[in-house]
Amino acid sequence: MTSSPSRSAHHLITRDLAAVAMGQKSADLIFRNGKLVNVCTARIRENCDIAVYKGYIALVGDASHIMTSVDTQVIDVGGKYLCPGLIDSHMHVESSMVDLRSFAAGVLPHGTTTICPDIHEMTNVLGMDAVTLFEESRKDLPLKVLTAMPVCVPSLPGMEDAGATISPAQVKQAYESGLAFLQGEQMNFPGVIHGDETVHKILGHGLAANKVLTGHYAGEDLNAGLNAYIASGMTADHETTTAQGASARAELGMYVQQRYGSAWLDLPNLITAVTENPGTDTRFYTMVTDDVTSATLVTQGHLDRVFRKAVSLGLNPIVALQMITINAAQMLEQSRWIGSLTPGRAADILVVDNLTDFKVEQVFSDGIKVAENGKMVRPISAFQYPEWAINTMYHNRITPLNFQMTAPCTDTVCARVIKLIPGQVNTLSTQAQMPVINGVLSADPGNDIAKAAMFYRHRPDGRADNTRGLGLVSGTEFKPGTAYASTVSHDCHNLLVVGTDDDAMCLAANALIDSGGGLVVVQDNRIISLLPLPFAGLMSLSSVEVTAAGILSIETALQKIGCAHVAFEMTMSLMGLVVLGELRLSNRGLVEMMDGKSPEFVDLIIL
Amino acid sequence: MTSSPSRSAHHLITRDLAAVAMGQKSADLIFRNGKLVNVCTARIRENCDIAVYKGYIALVGDASHIMTSVDTQVIDVGGKYLCPGLIDSHMHVESSMVDLRSFAAGVLPHGTTTICPDIHEMTNVLGMDAVTLFEESRKDLPLKVLTAMPVCVPSLPGMEDAGATISPAQVKQAYESGLAFLQGEQMNFPGVIHGDETVHKILGHGLAANKVLTGHYAGEDLNAGLNAYIASGMTADHETTTAQGASARAELGMYVQQRYGSAWLDLPNLITAVTENPGTDTRFYTMVTDDVTSATLVTQGHLDRVFRKAVSLGLNPIVALQMITINAAQMLEQSRWIGSLTPGRAADILVVDNLTDFKVEQVFSDGIKVAENGKMVRPISAFQYPEWAINTMYHNRITPLNFQMTAPCTDTVCARVIKLIPGQVNTLSTQAQMPVINGVLSADPGNDIAKAAMFYRHRPDGRADNTRGLGLVSGTEFKPGTAYASTVSHDCHNLLVVGTDDDAMCLAANALIDSGGGLVVVQDNRIISLLPLPFAGLMSLSSVEVTAAGILSIETALQKIGCAHVAFEMTMSLMGLVVLGELRLSNRGLVEMMDGKSPEFVDLIIL
Repeated sequence: MTSSPSRSAHHLITRDLAAVAMGQKSADLIFRNGKLVNVCTARIRENCDIAVYKGYIALVGDASHIMTSVDTQVIDVGGKYLCPGLIDSHMHVESSMVDLRSFAAGVLPHGTTTICPDIHEMTNVLGMDAVTLFEESRKDLPLKVLTAMPVCVPSLPGMEDAGATISPAQVKQAYESGLAFLQGEQMNFPGVIHGDETVHKILGHGLAANKVLTGHYAGEDLNAGLNAYIASGMTADHETTTAQGASARAELGMYVQQRYGSAWLDLPNLITAVTENPGTDTRFYTMVTDDVTSATLVTQGHLDRVFRKAVSLGLNPIVALQMITINAAQMLEQSRWIGSLTPGRAADILVVDNLTDFKVEQVFSDGIKVAENGKMVRPISAFQYPEWAINTMYHNRITPLNFQMTAPCTDTVCARVIKLIPGQVNTLSTQAQMPVINGVLSADPGNDIAKAAMFYRHRPDGRADNTRGLGLVSGTEFKPGTAYASTVSHDCHNLLVVGTDDDAMCLAANALIDSGGGLVVVQDNRIISLLPLPFAGLMSLSSVEVTAAGILSIETALQKIGCAHVAFEMTMSLMGLVVLGELRLSNRGLVEMMDGKSPEFVDLIIL
Repeated sequence: MTSSPSRSAHHLITRDLAAVAMGQKSADLIFRNGKLVNVCTARIRENCDIAVYKGYIALVGDASHIMTSVDTQVIDVGGKYLCPGLIDSHMHVESSMVDLRSFAAGVLPHGTTTICPDIHEMTNVLGMDAVTLFEESRKDLPLKVLTAMPVCVPSLPGMEDAGATISPAQVKQAYESGLAFLQGEQMNFPGVIHGDETVHKILGHGLAANKVLTGHYAGEDLNAGLNAYIASGMTADHETTTAQGASARAELGMYVQQRYGSAWLDLPNLITAVTENPGTDTRFYTMVTDDVTSATLVTQGHLDRVFRKAVSLGLNPIVALQMITINAAQMLEQSRWIGSLTPGRAADILVVDNLTDFKVEQVFSDGIKVAENGKMVRPISAFQYPEWAINTMYHNRITPLNFQMTAPCTDTVCARVIKLIPGQVNTLSTQAQMPVINGVLSADPGNDIAKAAMFYRHRPDGRADNTRGLGLVSGTEFKPGTAYASTVSHDCHNLLVVGTDDDAMCLAANALIDSGGGLVVVQDNRIISLLPLPFAGLMSLSSVEVTAAGILSIETALQKIGCAHVAFEMTMSLMGLVVLGELRLSNRGLVEMMDGKSPEFVDLIIL
């Protein structure tokens, strides 16, 4: 077992680095004539050189005295910008729907050289084995992978069932074994602020192990609640959706991780906290992706996309770059290693055309060129996943009866309806009058109401087997006779089925049982798109390009069956995330959590 | 052995802090109606409250819902400023000439709540025993003492002899034993940049133990040399004397520790790097005291004095405060614990009248009021030092012959003269024509040339016993028949004697041998001032007030014998600091180090 990555080599080569800087030993790599974006001082230094040795920066400034040998690579960047490699301080690899190695190959060409993956998706499916497996899979990658230990598996115990649970003792053990670099998002924010003992035991293990604790505070209360959350040891949070929430966090010494993923596009709502407050110190502001699909990666980019968006919203480009370099590095207490182009730091260096389009032309990771003009120039080998990580669908075949919603013998009933909001993680808890026909409720596509079901799909555990939740959902705009199913269904990743017709829903569900998990769209009793995701039912084993095509095919199919919104498969994937308000569907039923209140099970039909 | 201080309690009380913030448990302490200086965002928040529980901040904002009990202390600060406790990230307690406990009582009333003492003065005298003793002496202090492990004992091996040496293995052992929080200043910067193996072994141990390494780069070369120094792992440096040197460090990702001590008053020369460059990000700028005497402490203050000076020089007060709070905390990678008034941090809180005079009216350390209106309100108990730490003068009585400087049989010779510069640490290597009378050189007070001697004074070690260096010095303006002697003589703290008359010098030297070390001034064959410093020959065991009076008496006496400059005893105390240029006097003789060259022994007389 390797330990988490760090400046492992630095202490062994300080003499060599000094000798290179002094011109007494040959550099491995020299950049000449760059415009260096200095994120430490927020200045651009013209005509700046960088000398690199064994993956570390030996000198920044004038390299005219630096010694070269026949092996020294000298790159004249011709006045282009030299930027530090970008740091994504909160994200989930699984959301890309590819594995870590394909993900690395997908993001490095965009300039992302460090990620902090909270691997709670695969851990909800596979438990601690996922953490160990992930640690093995990141070996020798030219991407710095600072793993965040999942601490909410499941996110709300007692309200849902995952494939595994993670206990406080397991979190402690993971830190002792060097399996994690920081603590993953603490989603059970009600548990934090209301003093849940297990939740605080986990926080305590993180603090005792000197880990940076990342948060997920979705409450509206920016005084008592937010203070209670931060006082409990939380250092960073990506969950705010308002500028007020962003500035409240920064003022309380919490790093704001402004989110701009595939489907939760919070950045424009947050960045005014900075752009409309000149003179504010921005060191506590970062930007993260949280969740991006391979489709977004391939068609729009990664942190480079986030940077472009921020600049288009009026943010000073140097400040934007600081947010995804030095600020993130300081948040991680790793600025002696990453986050700036300064001596003694890792040579994670980007050559960039300009600070508006931010086209990343060359990417160096630890001094090795890994990508050029948007393509990897060094192959990343595949990882052989074990059988137990590939076959994770444990549900028997489903019948249309499984979707039946019985109702009292009246003409109509008042039923709860989950209202999805495109582009946001939130849902609304709404109600609708539904007709009762033959003692059951049906979908009502004419009024944009579909049926939804959540089937427990993990290894048999007795307690949760055969459990399923049923609900109604609006916002899909699904046509009659259509269905969608997915095993990407945060955070327990049970089998989610949404549709307007029980037979279509049945066909969709069984297609995923047969394919080992994935996404599927059904119309007119026919599968019109299927993306198999065999690894934990969450990830393909193909490249980002191939997977992106599959996702785009799903998105096209979703549009075909009536759903017009961007990346709506991601919006639906949160339908089961009970730790977010207001109304969600778990394998145990409907869970309502209104602001300031604790989550509770509620009935579909309001009597 | 306790380990170095840290957020030791936080992980045990997160539930309680959350409960206090939520208004479900009584706070210990509440501040109401303050102007909170938010160093995270560089904003002032009006009408701001703080709630404290068990030494930690539970809430910042509106405390109207916070629960109180009969034991809750509520302080209405009436619109005064609430500031974080101040952090001195590089200093030497020994320079105050009192021990740590008296020092704590001296600085807490000025708002300093965290210090990072590099204890290399006492370690030069007592070796590793000093480090252990210091660790014991800091127990239960209401001052956060983040010890910096001395790594230059002596500063330049082979050029001088101290009472002990510290090996790389001892540094490693100290880290493993939890005796040090960070690595002390690496003064042997020529050794760093030119690849000295022992020096790099020490750096390597620090990096491998994840310690922040503090620097001391006195070179002029801001390209190759400074890059080599930083690339070797140095994070902070207090040694620059120019604005150019300051900005070069910040640009290279090195924390600038702008110095404003008793006698080295660099801040005004450095701060223009910030004040004349609006828009520069200042996060890599801090301010430190390095060396302040008790006299300066009592009459002018500590970091509050540095703050006032910075503001008087045109620095924005919030930026000035950031430099000695959040910036220093981030440098130390401890901003989750100290450096801001935000939830979950230590309740090190100052009540301050305004941001210009910066009169610190109340000081709270870990939520306990320790000082008010410039006085301690909680006593600090004395520490009982062992005999071996008190009796450290091991030199036989000195005779006038010990000062004799023999010369060739000519009328005059050209001799090297150390030129002292008031207010600076630097010296110049100058030359003078000196008359030879009866085969010896004498002081020439008419031309401001005194004699100087450095006697090895530590425990017998055979190798260095009876060694002494002799030299000439200008800049003292000592009158005829006068002498000064001191065992505060950086860094080896041998017995320094300076004077214009051999008998006076002899009297001064023997007075210190009799008193166990200290400072003494002699005029007309009479001791006109004597300050005994029995602890390691460096520190008194009295309070800062008593010691300050002794120092002022010495300074008055120095003026009486002709020396007009401020705190000139400190300037003279560096006469033996061979790691600084240009000409110094060690117990082995004169050492010259011109810029860019290695240090070397030189003769007094140039033939």
